[in-house]
Amino acid sequence: MKIGLDIMGGDYAPKATVLGAIEAYKVLQGHKLVLIGDKEAAIGILREHNFDPDNFEYVHTTEVIGMGEHPTKAVVQKADSSISVGFRMLKEGQIDAFSSAGNTGAMLVGSMFSVKTIPGILRPAITTIVPRLNGGINILLDVGANADCKPEVLVQFGVLGSLMAQSVYGIENPRVALMNIGEEEEKGNLLCQATYPLMKETSQFNFIGNAEGRDLFGDAADVFVCDGFTGNIILKLAESFYVITRKKGLKDEFFDRFNYEQYGGSPILGINAPVVVGHGISSPEAIKNMVLLSKDMVESELVAKVTEAFQ
Amino acid sequence: MKIGLDIMGGDYAPKATVLGAIEAYKVLQGHKLVLIGDKEAAIGILREHNFDPDNFEYVHTTEVIGMGEHPTKAVVQKADSSISVGFRMLKEGQIDAFSSAGNTGAMLVGSMFSVKTIPGILRPAITTIVPRLNGGINILLDVGANADCKPEVLVQFGVLGSLMAQSVYGIENPRVALMNIGEEEEKGNLLCQATYPLMKETSQFNFIGNAEGRDLFGDAADVFVCDGFTGNIILKLAESFYVITRKKGLKDEFFDRFNYEQYGGSPILGINAPVVVGHGISSPEAIKNMVLLSKDMVESELVAKVTEAFQ
Repeated sequence: MKIGLDIMGGDYAPKATVLGAIEAYKVLQGHKLVLIGDKEAAIGILREHNFDPDNFEYVHTTEVIGMGEHPTKAVVQKADSSISVGFRMLKEGQIDAFSSAGNTGAMLVGSMFSVKTIPGILRPAITTIVPRLNGGINILLDVGANADCKPEVLVQFGVLGSLMAQSVYGIENPRVALMNIGEEEEKGNLLCQATYPLMKETSQFNFIGNAEGRDLFGDAADVFVCDGFTGNIILKLAESFYVITRKKGLKDEFFDRFNYEQYGGSPILGINAPVVVGHGISSPEAIKNMVLLSKDMVESELVAKVTEAFQ
Repeated sequence: MKIGLDIMGGDYAPKATVLGAIEAYKVLQGHKLVLIGDKEAAIGILREHNFDPDNFEYVHTTEVIGMGEHPTKAVVQKADSSISVGFRMLKEGQIDAFSSAGNTGAMLVGSMFSVKTIPGILRPAITTIVPRLNGGINILLDVGANADCKPEVLVQFGVLGSLMAQSVYGIENPRVALMNIGEEEEKGNLLCQATYPLMKETSQFNFIGNAEGRDLFGDAADVFVCDGFTGNIILKLAESFYVITRKKGLKDEFFDRFNYEQYGGSPILGINAPVVVGHGISSPEAIKNMVLLSKDMVESELVAKVTEAFQ
């Protein structure tokens, strides 16, 4: 397996990304990492850390898509950026997965322009992991790819989240909940009211009904489905809680598990290849786990399973 | 001033509400509390606690609207419920404010059926307080009265939140932010994209642009505006964090300020009288603060100010 890593992506790139690649190398057990970006800079950092550059493959690129750039424009205009090159390689099968802690929008646009959505999928989704109070994880999607969603799109997110929970996290018959503002079927906004009956009827996943904001860290469901507007606000609010507990020096096993570094990043689901987007402030540890999550996505054959589900 | 208190509302009523009335009495300085509900039960509780029942006025009612009842049906069918009677008294001017820790939906329906929305107001909003990390409070609305909102409705919520921040909390020229998923004007769902330009143009409040989930506990804005679906999910997620820190025994001044008991309840804004809804699990302390918030709303003449703003 060859995993492509954008070494120019993230606020601390290329240092954090290259050091993360070293950490990933130690546990990748024979799988090859392809570093995409400024080759000279990478080799300099590796030498500084007494690491043999021959352990990696390299694809040199001359451009970088900044965190604030307009995604579509940047992907189109910067053909030799690490993100654009990464997606070209992914499309051509030169790498089996691609991950980056760079511009999320550019990663989404790059995915849709290059490897494209899986036939039958209306919209891809960005997925995140939240820690459960009693151990384990919950899956939340979408967290920002689609600010406005149709009911059919939310139903598809249920399928995507369910397959990810099974394939990548080994959860059997995952319980899928609709994020809403009340337990009863008739509760919620128009989107949820239209989505609930569709989810209730589907045989594609194990729908257990509505969940509320307070259920996110509990164990009543494994997968929480919402539109990307709601999910992004939830994600950023939850992150701010984590930041607050850290700032205050509150030590607790649960809050430690909030640390995004442990989860590596957010997979983009519903596209024809494994793609993971890391947090902009990714540390070497986070980069390592982003690479390992990419590996898990390849090994679990999640893309093939999603393709099959939508045939 | 006469403040009506529904002594049958909340999970621990009437004991918690009657004990809360005693606490409120100690600080109300001459203003009269009218206890609405089972008079005999109230007097029994007061005598048990060696409190002179003559310190309150009473309006005996024979029915109770349960927490799980359908709001509209319950308000219409239970004419002698404490909530229905409370609103009748409010409409007829026998009390200057009404508060209850009972069925939120019934409180909303009761408001709209009895005192009605202020002319010009499209939809009333339920408002909540969130603690700021560096001290003080932020205001969030709507947190559940309107799951789906039009842009014009969000603009009105900006006016309501701004007037409440000024009148009740003494914040000068309150900064109003639109809760969104990015800082730039063009970010967000269709609702936010349509709302931003309207807020930018308005002279009715000090619009400072978009806020994100992570900004809720910061001091970049004083008022956060969103639809009731988003606000309700935010509110319940934030509450769950508070519950988690309490369960884990984490002591911190900031988390203590999350305690809903301190804020007393959520005002319903945009209606022709001061109405406050308390948390279902309200303790005597929370009931006391709900009554005091009602008093503050009367004294600040918030209803008159909102009426003037929409003339």
